[in-house]
Amino acid sequence: MDEDILYHLDLGTKTHNLPAMFGDVKFVCVGGSPNRMKAFAQFMHKELQLEGDGEDIEDICAGTDRYCMFKTGPVLSISHGMGIPSISIMLHELIKLLHHARCCDVTIIRIGTSGGIGIAPGSVVITDTAVDSFFKPRFEQIILDNVVTRSTELDKELATDLLNCSRETPGFPTLIGHTMCTYDFYEGQGRLDGALCSFSREKKLDYLKRAYKAGVRNIEMESTVFAAMCGLCGLRAAVVCVTLLDRLESDQINLSHDVLVEYQQRPQLLISNFIKKQLGLCGQMS
Amino acid sequence: MDEDILYHLDLGTKTHNLPAMFGDVKFVCVGGSPNRMKAFAQFMHKELQLEGDGEDIEDICAGTDRYCMFKTGPVLSISHGMGIPSISIMLHELIKLLHHARCCDVTIIRIGTSGGIGIAPGSVVITDTAVDSFFKPRFEQIILDNVVTRSTELDKELATDLLNCSRETPGFPTLIGHTMCTYDFYEGQGRLDGALCSFSREKKLDYLKRAYKAGVRNIEMESTVFAAMCGLCGLRAAVVCVTLLDRLESDQINLSHDVLVEYQQRPQLLISNFIKKQLGLCGQMS
Repeated sequence: MDEDILYHLDLGTKTHNLPAMFGDVKFVCVGGSPNRMKAFAQFMHKELQLEGDGEDIEDICAGTDRYCMFKTGPVLSISHGMGIPSISIMLHELIKLLHHARCCDVTIIRIGTSGGIGIAPGSVVITDTAVDSFFKPRFEQIILDNVVTRSTELDKELATDLLNCSRETPGFPTLIGHTMCTYDFYEGQGRLDGALCSFSREKKLDYLKRAYKAGVRNIEMESTVFAAMCGLCGLRAAVVCVTLLDRLESDQINLSHDVLVEYQQRPQLLISNFIKKQLGLCGQMS
Repeated sequence: MDEDILYHLDLGTKTHNLPAMFGDVKFVCVGGSPNRMKAFAQFMHKELQLEGDGEDIEDICAGTDRYCMFKTGPVLSISHGMGIPSISIMLHELIKLLHHARCCDVTIIRIGTSGGIGIAPGSVVITDTAVDSFFKPRFEQIILDNVVTRSTELDKELATDLLNCSRETPGFPTLIGHTMCTYDFYEGQGRLDGALCSFSREKKLDYLKRAYKAGVRNIEMESTVFAAMCGLCGLRAAVVCVTLLDRLESDQINLSHDVLVEYQQRPQLLISNFIKKQLGLCGQMS
């Protein structure tokens, strides 16, 4: 191609010098919420002791409201919205961006929120394998009118490194487990409180308990396609999500604002420590 | 339920007086982009000749960055992000909101952007039936670990009324056709320019031509679940999308900013005229 327009990022190979802008990127952190990913970038700015005021950090994708993107040293922080289709558009364009920018040895980590199963709210789950609604480690990608099944395994060494790092990050429980990825938040996750609900509380609990038995510890909406695409494109990938409630106990998220904010910071804290360690900056910093 | 927290809208039955805030809503317009839905609300404010300055219109969901919501008289304007999962979360919480607010006779219209097939870029497509990647008029909802097939028919009378209204809204071509809804923007829509692509230009064109033959005139990423959920919940629903390119000609969207903005205004103009007509305000206004 003569020109590549990364439409949903409002970037392109003719309009931007992508190697100059992104060539030094080593870590990409992605999450659903734009505000949260901005907060993470500001936090990384401080943790990496970069020059200048991190508060007025610039959104590289300011020309579009589809996604937000912030860069702090070798760390890129990007929002991906909610659900498999939304994150998949971002990943296609991000992976092309990293290619055009000639980045190498990139680690990509999704830091998100999720519903837990049988674990205390506020626990952080590092995903070993992403599974679908049938507890299978697969992502079914429709290509033209064919269904192609892709693997959803994540980097085992990276997951172990992150678990080890969590032991040096006290204050909250962290564990490794399967993460179930669904296409919706209500009926697909067995919630009784959606606009539509055709099953009983018993059927819901039976489903969630079967998920627990299959090794699932949390539920979110992006991990299977994230694992599949990163795996196929050779990116070292991890998924690290905090749980906001225990789905065996309730369906609604009714945490106070302060508790919600503190929970959402937990994956950020863990990943910030991991990145500092990888960059050889640990011990020298707060 | 004693209390219903509409988590992703940052609204709730105990924290907000939903009947007072929303009881008079008669039209709900939804679209992917927050900026576009704000622009539509500002446009409706002017068109309905409401008091005050429409420029500083308040985002009712300002407490969350998942969705934006604006109210101008009886018209609610809400963003839904990209893809089936993202719009489905919003619809669950919107439908509960309309129920709690005791709204009746509500019409809901998705005004979006899309890729066209075999029609001129800038054409506006009013959807008669939303179809999936296999050209079937169905939405497959996963409930617990069962797949339930739902109908994706839209309100035929409403589609005809909108087409008639378009004849009084000159300046761009409008037509009725099937809309294909996919789970992703690249491989699922036969694009050759994604990070992953395993098919030839010939296979792509063969697929898109088969879609055209089946009656598909445009492709987007939300219409099947929108049609299915609105149908089941008794909302009169329509999908009106402008096409940004002809997919038989190209994959990349390379319109200039000004043309893109003008195209995106076309469904807004049509729906604004339709709403004014329904409210008996036509002829009295610009």
